[in-house]
Amino acid sequence: MPPQDFEAALRAKIDGKTKPLGALGRIEALAAQIARVQGSLTPRLERGRLILFAADHGIAAEGVSAYPPEVTRQMVLNFLAGGAAANVFARQAGLPVTVVDCGVAGAPIAHPGLIARRIGPGTANARRGPAMTAAQCEAALDLGRELGREGEFDALCLGEMGIGNTSSAALLAAKITGQPVAGFIGRGTGVDAAGLARKQAVLEEAAARTAPCLGAAEALAQYGGFEIAAMAGAMRGAAEARRLVLVDGFIAGAAALVALGLEPAIRENLVFAHHSAEQGHAALLAALGAEPLLDLGLRLGEGSGALLAWPLLRAAAAMLNEMASFESAAVSGPA
Amino acid sequence: MPPQDFEAALRAKIDGKTKPLGALGRIEALAAQIARVQGSLTPRLERGRLILFAADHGIAAEGVSAYPPEVTRQMVLNFLAGGAAANVFARQAGLPVTVVDCGVAGAPIAHPGLIARRIGPGTANARRGPAMTAAQCEAALDLGRELGREGEFDALCLGEMGIGNTSSAALLAAKITGQPVAGFIGRGTGVDAAGLARKQAVLEEAAARTAPCLGAAEALAQYGGFEIAAMAGAMRGAAEARRLVLVDGFIAGAAALVALGLEPAIRENLVFAHHSAEQGHAALLAALGAEPLLDLGLRLGEGSGALLAWPLLRAAAAMLNEMASFESAAVSGPA
Repeated sequence: MPPQDFEAALRAKIDGKTKPLGALGRIEALAAQIARVQGSLTPRLERGRLILFAADHGIAAEGVSAYPPEVTRQMVLNFLAGGAAANVFARQAGLPVTVVDCGVAGAPIAHPGLIARRIGPGTANARRGPAMTAAQCEAALDLGRELGREGEFDALCLGEMGIGNTSSAALLAAKITGQPVAGFIGRGTGVDAAGLARKQAVLEEAAARTAPCLGAAEALAQYGGFEIAAMAGAMRGAAEARRLVLVDGFIAGAAALVALGLEPAIRENLVFAHHSAEQGHAALLAALGAEPLLDLGLRLGEGSGALLAWPLLRAAAAMLNEMASFESAAVSGPA
Repeated sequence: MPPQDFEAALRAKIDGKTKPLGALGRIEALAAQIARVQGSLTPRLERGRLILFAADHGIAAEGVSAYPPEVTRQMVLNFLAGGAAANVFARQAGLPVTVVDCGVAGAPIAHPGLIARRIGPGTANARRGPAMTAAQCEAALDLGRELGREGEFDALCLGEMGIGNTSSAALLAAKITGQPVAGFIGRGTGVDAAGLARKQAVLEEAAARTAPCLGAAEALAQYGGFEIAAMAGAMRGAAEARRLVLVDGFIAGAAALVALGLEPAIRENLVFAHHSAEQGHAALLAALGAEPLLDLGLRLGEGSGALLAWPLLRAAAAMLNEMASFESAAVSGPA
């Protein structure tokens, strides 16, 4: 069907449902997005999954986080044991969770449920030099791309764990948008005033190492994390398989900025799940031109917000597929 | 447990979960509300239902709606056939739907799936006189109270159908808050500019019949609908059974205003599901002191917004019940 015919048929199908015109607001827009991504007026949106990428950040050594770096590893074990918020919300949503170690510091984690695809034992300290080599950056992107493309599912929730990764995300956002890093800095896991001042000083210094505006690939190598690169790659891989991607909060948003810098055409595949309480997220969303579905004061990451938005995606597709039309239900239109 | 000990134990339980302090935002507040309503640190939030009350409004004869009054009946048949948005979203949420005819105009609807508890064949025209008698008002409240209290479930989604009921809701909101009705008038199912002007004139005239500020019971009899009275009663009945109630949009919000006027103590049981695109809802929410969970541009009613918020309620309870603590998962706290 030519694109304009598809759009007309989609509009007619949504407007013919037994509801006042436009009365389902953003659920209608979401249904249309799902239909466009799949190129189908009867899209399938049933099988989802959460991929949770974990990695450490060299910059965490600068004291930019309220939590010690070993929490990344501890939380990976918590994910594998099913006890984290992401696990709880994924069970509610009926989605399987895939945990990927793409660069947790220390010795490799031995666990049968873990996908061990380590790029390295954490990134280098981006205050002093590039966080990763070009080869590591490419490997992390490729890893994500492979995982986003493979398997049988309709939509992907992406989550991350990595102590220090709001610092990485803030630097990425600054360098890709060309805006000052200060506008993207927040309290992360909850640094106090002194911690925030330290974080600001460290990130200003890290930002001063390079030009104000960098291409997405260069920014990623300089300031990214392996989990952020993998998420960016997964967005691309999922888009190649015509899948929707639920983008979580601040860190995932930075990954989206990277992914869109590398491949602008994937924009249609991305659904921004929630507005985070992390300070810099508003500026990041503005740069992305994104209006997320939820605004619940979340600032956890792990894909928690993406999982909470998942039922809205399902409801939107079900609306399109299952809801009666004025004609089929013999309901009168406007007088 | 004394109330202050319960609160302390609840706070400790939520704060001990493996997440930065407060990082689940409104999900944490929701979990606390569920715990308080049930008086339990391990609340149960699994079994829900949607009760959909349908009734007609005499004021619809004044041309205040974009749709003809027979649509109420047609939509009841659509609900019973499972084709409306409410049915689709309820199936997604796994909730059964109970459809109650509490006053649809015309002959009684014969259908095995319908709860026929008709107070009358629609209300009288509130432009000219009271919408219902005191006895009808009481009967509709009692009907709702009974249905909200009986049965086996943890939380109740409330929905409604009734052509003309944004007019009824606007008048109720005006009379109970003592504010001018103009601030609560919107396009409802979608009247055009001329229709909106007509609606405004009719509602101004209806409002002028009585004192600017009325008690909840008096306002309900003067301007209510049977479905709105039944929803208000259901909120009270559900609260008596220590249940949560998901309050949908503008019409359900007006019912909440009535219910709170009759019994302020039920406030803790109410969860406001979404901010409607209906013009007057912002003023109504301000009067209720409510900040809804969702803001998706919905303006459909039927409990559609309540159903979309249902997974958030489930996720909040699951967080409290299932998520690991720093201690149980051996995760380090802040450095």
